[in-house]
Amino acid sequence: MKALQYRAIGARPEVVEIDEPEPGPGQLLLKVTAAGACHSDEFVMSLPAEAYDYGFPLTLGHEGAGVVAAVGQGVEHVAVGDAVAVYGPWGCGRCHNCAQGKENYCTNAAAEGIRPPGLGAPGAMAEYMLVDSERHVVPLDGLDPVKNVSLTDAGLTPYHAIKQSLPKLGAGATAVVLGTGGLGHVGIQILKAISGARVIAVDVNEEKLELASEVGADETVLSNKEATGRIRDLTGGLGADAVFDFVGVQPTMEIAVASAAVEADVTIVGIGGGSVPVAFGSVPFDAALRMPYWGSRSELIEVLDLARRGQITVEIEQFSLADAPRAYEKLHAGSLRGRAVVVPD
Amino acid sequence: MKALQYRAIGARPEVVEIDEPEPGPGQLLLKVTAAGACHSDEFVMSLPAEAYDYGFPLTLGHEGAGVVAAVGQGVEHVAVGDAVAVYGPWGCGRCHNCAQGKENYCTNAAAEGIRPPGLGAPGAMAEYMLVDSERHVVPLDGLDPVKNVSLTDAGLTPYHAIKQSLPKLGAGATAVVLGTGGLGHVGIQILKAISGARVIAVDVNEEKLELASEVGADETVLSNKEATGRIRDLTGGLGADAVFDFVGVQPTMEIAVASAAVEADVTIVGIGGGSVPVAFGSVPFDAALRMPYWGSRSELIEVLDLARRGQITVEIEQFSLADAPRAYEKLHAGSLRGRAVVVPD
Amino acid sequence: MKALQYRAIGARPEVVEIDEPEPGPGQLLLKVTAAGACHSDEFVMSLPAEAYDYGFPLTLGHEGAGVVAAVGQGVEHVAVGDAVAVYGPWGCGRCHNCAQGKENYCTNAAAEGIRPPGLGAPGAMAEYMLVDSERHVVPLDGLDPVKNVSLTDAGLTPYHAIKQSLPKLGAGATAVVLGTGGLGHVGIQILKAISGARVIAVDVNEEKLELASEVGADETVLSNKEATGRIRDLTGGLGADAVFDFVGVQPTMEIAVASAAVEADVTIVGIGGGSVPVAFGSVPFDAALRMPYWGSRSELIEVLDLARRGQITVEIEQFSLADAPRAYEKLHAGSLRGRAVVVPD
Amino acid sequence: MKALQYRAIGARPEVVEIDEPEPGPGQLLLKVTAAGACHSDEFVMSLPAEAYDYGFPLTLGHEGAGVVAAVGQGVEHVAVGDAVAVYGPWGCGRCHNCAQGKENYCTNAAAEGIRPPGLGAPGAMAEYMLVDSERHVVPLDGLDPVKNVSLTDAGLTPYHAIKQSLPKLGAGATAVVLGTGGLGHVGIQILKAISGARVIAVDVNEEKLELASEVGADETVLSNKEATGRIRDLTGGLGADAVFDFVGVQPTMEIAVASAAVEADVTIVGIGGGSVPVAFGSVPFDAALRMPYWGSRSELIEVLDLARRGQITVEIEQFSLADAPRAYEKLHAGSLRGRAVVVPD
Repeated sequence: MKALQYRAIGARPEVVEIDEPEPGPGQLLLKVTAAGACHSDEFVMSLPAEAYDYGFPLTLGHEGAGVVAAVGQGVEHVAVGDAVAVYGPWGCGRCHNCAQGKENYCTNAAAEGIRPPGLGAPGAMAEYMLVDSERHVVPLDGLDPVKNVSLTDAGLTPYHAIKQSLPKLGAGATAVVLGTGGLGHVGIQILKAISGARVIAVDVNEEKLELASEVGADETVLSNKEATGRIRDLTGGLGADAVFDFVGVQPTMEIAVASAAVEADVTIVGIGGGSVPVAFGSVPFDAALRMPYWGSRSELIEVLDLARRGQITVEIEQFSLADAPRAYEKLHAGSLRGRAVVVPD
Repeated sequence: MKALQYRAIGARPEVVEIDEPEPGPGQLLLKVTAAGACHSDEFVMSLPAEAYDYGFPLTLGHEGAGVVAAVGQGVEHVAVGDAVAVYGPWGCGRCHNCAQGKENYCTNAAAEGIRPPGLGAPGAMAEYMLVDSERHVVPLDGLDPVKNVSLTDAGLTPYHAIKQSLPKLGAGATAVVLGTGGLGHVGIQILKAISGARVIAVDVNEEKLELASEVGADETVLSNKEATGRIRDLTGGLGADAVFDFVGVQPTMEIAVASAAVEADVTIVGIGGGSVPVAFGSVPFDAALRMPYWGSRSELIEVLDLARRGQITVEIEQFSLADAPRAYEKLHAGSLRGRAVVVPD
Repeated sequence: MKALQYRAIGARPEVVEIDEPEPGPGQLLLKVTAAGACHSDEFVMSLPAEAYDYGFPLTLGHEGAGVVAAVGQGVEHVAVGDAVAVYGPWGCGRCHNCAQGKENYCTNAAAEGIRPPGLGAPGAMAEYMLVDSERHVVPLDGLDPVKNVSLTDAGLTPYHAIKQSLPKLGAGATAVVLGTGGLGHVGIQILKAISGARVIAVDVNEEKLELASEVGADETVLSNKEATGRIRDLTGGLGADAVFDFVGVQPTMEIAVASAAVEADVTIVGIGGGSVPVAFGSVPFDAALRMPYWGSRSELIEVLDLARRGQITVEIEQFSLADAPRAYEKLHAGSLRGRAVVVPD
Repeated sequence: MKALQYRAIGARPEVVEIDEPEPGPGQLLLKVTAAGACHSDEFVMSLPAEAYDYGFPLTLGHEGAGVVAAVGQGVEHVAVGDAVAVYGPWGCGRCHNCAQGKENYCTNAAAEGIRPPGLGAPGAMAEYMLVDSERHVVPLDGLDPVKNVSLTDAGLTPYHAIKQSLPKLGAGATAVVLGTGGLGHVGIQILKAISGARVIAVDVNEEKLELASEVGADETVLSNKEATGRIRDLTGGLGADAVFDFVGVQPTMEIAVASAAVEADVTIVGIGGGSVPVAFGSVPFDAALRMPYWGSRSELIEVLDLARRGQITVEIEQFSLADAPRAYEKLHAGSLRGRAVVVPD
């Protein structure tokens, strides 16, 4: 079968022919219907040899959807033919965190060598993929896999970040979204769907802010030296109750902290290499700074519920598997509007 | 000045001429700009002598708004000319509950004889009213008093009830609103504004359900024997995550309990004389039954924020003070659409 | 092998010889080291034929601990020789509730015929038992199975009930525990270990209250007509912030409601056939009435953590498997001090 | 009357004779029974002229207790003779935060020039002090003012910090307390009283750790390069669920972050001039960093409840008002065991 693989440090990902896998006991084989490309793939492929520990060759794709093609022994609740989305941050299923479905924070995964598909285990950018357990798939229940596969990361990650801040985002609250691309434009919709917050979107040009407005942002602000002042003005001088930085570079992280109110949440989601100090006077009193990672199993179910109700929609650009390398080129160039989705023929 | 008073058990409220009050130390005198009529006024006036302890004569009106006409000594943060809404459930300001602004649950009020305006203290259905402390008013900040005075109870009460259930009303959740009149039609808007829930509205006729749809209900269900089955169908058999009964008669309370999911909130707001048993098998596991009362000071601020942002609007019918008795007649007859507001000339 | 079975409506449980089971794919076989007897077994055996749906013969025992004797294909994280406790309220593992480890509230269990061991599936009162999935066991990690097996229900059930009320049980709070037997005496210890509450224990005689004091109750009250007055006195007239009724008969449920403060939690855990009405004036404002069922997977891990730290200890009386019927006789007669544990030879 | 004042940049505080104040409308005059000295007084007196904005002369003492000696007009709920503790972080009483009793985060205080006693307004280190409103005192209800005055800051500040982390400090959890002096030794007691956490205390020498053990710490660790490793060992490699740094210097803040688990709370309370970066990889996923300030009105009530129940006790060293300068010398030298309390003759 065809698969998109990263095969050596610094190489460009390429489409190669590999053997079709077979499911062992408890495993599922999916015929992939869609796979999403993500900035974190880029991050992984930019790592120097000494920091790279994902193995070679690495079949990419941690956002995946498919139809069950075969099941291993002992699989009980999933059947051949089921259309599913893949929950990516696999864990052991039994530690205190996994027992709550927070497999993204499994305390055994590192020791046991459990890795997410596309980030250690073979990913979804292939004709077929293995899922290690039936608990790592969620029924699509009518959702189009191509339009929704991105929700498994680009939906789940902002959802998890936002859900923690909901107690601060009731009536009269204001949320700031920094970066309105792949994750950000979904984040804006999630905020409008489940919180009471007014949303201020911040990005580097008017075109990106236009998308932000289309998906529901109440206010838009250009990401420059005046951004913090504008946000303060829009919040009566108090700052925002929650700030979500989906970029994570130095300028956005500085805006994030400077825009926050006393007791706000400042959540840095993007891995852009920025850094801000926590020191007396540098952050508002009781503002909580936090860097989350992906989300839980039940949260993915909730994200798909939002999509099924029409409360969130992902802006996507579609590529064939053969054309998948170009998806990463456009991602790298920043010329995608929304999210790249790869569809095997 | 003119005031609408309830003057004897069983009497109809009447407009009388009384002395204009003067503010003592710490008190405010408001020139009333609007006062709301409420089902609980009716409830009070229906009480037999042995159960009535609000004193005579009772100037009605626990929903009030006005302009500050004079202030007593020691008032610091309110000035003559300020346009304000009145927070009604007055407390001592110092007990553990009041120290959190939950004056509706003041533990000293009963012992110290502290009563809300219109429910013991002289109310807002008059040309002028006294407010006992500057902490019991909230600036209107541009809100029209006539259109928004009802929010001090018909907004605050459902808001308080709903706010407690927000953790259960995220993505994929369903809320049921029983009774779509004064409180209910505001409750629907609050749910849509600050939660992720789909809202199922239930009422006795299509006309009332039409208002429910206009203000944002996603589904409407006639309140009859099939109502529970309909709600179960709409929730995949699981029941609703939160049910708010703004009527509180026997049939609505029964629908409320029967429509609830495991771990749901069932909140009875209306004082309609109904009763449901809590016994093994009679309520879903871990469903929480609760009967709240009014709301807190900070919650009133939040409700006015919602109005200022245009997220909630009250359907009102306006009456002059001279004509106020007729407001109660229509209220009693159930022929009001929305809420009755009395405006002194 | 030997097993204790309930074999016909109204019959007494008896020890019989049955085949040793074998684990299928994904399943575990445990050599049982301890099994607990519970009031709910009695409840099940008291049901008339038309209400009994647990199948015949029913091997009893929903509290179980054992050593893994064999594992089916696809079991990855449990090995032969592991000493474990059994999480009893089995679910599908994949619905929204199970994805959070709340298998006690699995939304598919009924439709798919999934039953807890001892309550439909063969239970722990046998030399060997099957566990349907490795996610349904928790490592004992050094805990004595005999002393701790009861925690899988008599610990988990009060823990789940109490955990939900923790936000109301901080500094200055008071909790009431009604019934200080099997669940109650563990509940008292849990309250002292993880909350800030003073604990008032209520039971029918001084002997039972003595055990309550030994395990940490701050105050004891005899369960009679004066009980509510005593609790009111001890709480400055306000009532308790949370009341846990581990009996659930008419008198305890009435005390529970009458002892509760405004905004309290009233949690009925015992299945004693009582019933209380929820109506205006019958319960304090915003008091939440709730009837929970068992607990979640992560909560069982937490309960065992408490035991491992020495924060909770179960009072037990030990029986051999051959002698197990006598355990149920003493349970029925109310002559057990603490909890009955059956240990196969 | 006598008062301890800070009268010029860099000067040592001195006892001077000033006029006794008189209460205006709404104000209270207290005869001071006890006043506490605090590290933050030192911080204020160390500020250079350009950063100092507390006015001159500054009567010190933001921890105060007294007996009401006179009340201004409009004071209703406090009477001459009442023994009270002073809530220090005064606010406007009417903004959204103050309406919840969070006057420490009043959004109007800065603009309206409202300052705490001892930190702008005249403080408690005097024979008499003014309190601006009756809502800023809490009845002592039998508590000894000398032994408990420190709770108004050294109790309230750690209590507020800890209370926010309670959801993370249930069964099986671990808390780390860095710095076991004035605030820390109270913090340890609060953790033991209201959470389920095991407490690891960290300080620079064995003598200080001895006090930590006396007040309830489960484990003690010397604050050095091995500290983080020790804490990791004690937590099975996972780190602590909450870390409270009551020192806030560079080394403690580094230990704080390095000792935290995924999803932990890291709360920096001490103002020691340290700084830690928040960047990808520098803090555990979803760990929340936060710097709180003092506490709310209801939290002070709760702290005094803890003291009244004997759950917390402050280690104090007592000084006369004439001798108060020496209290600050010992504070500066680090030679106090616990907290300094000044008692006017």
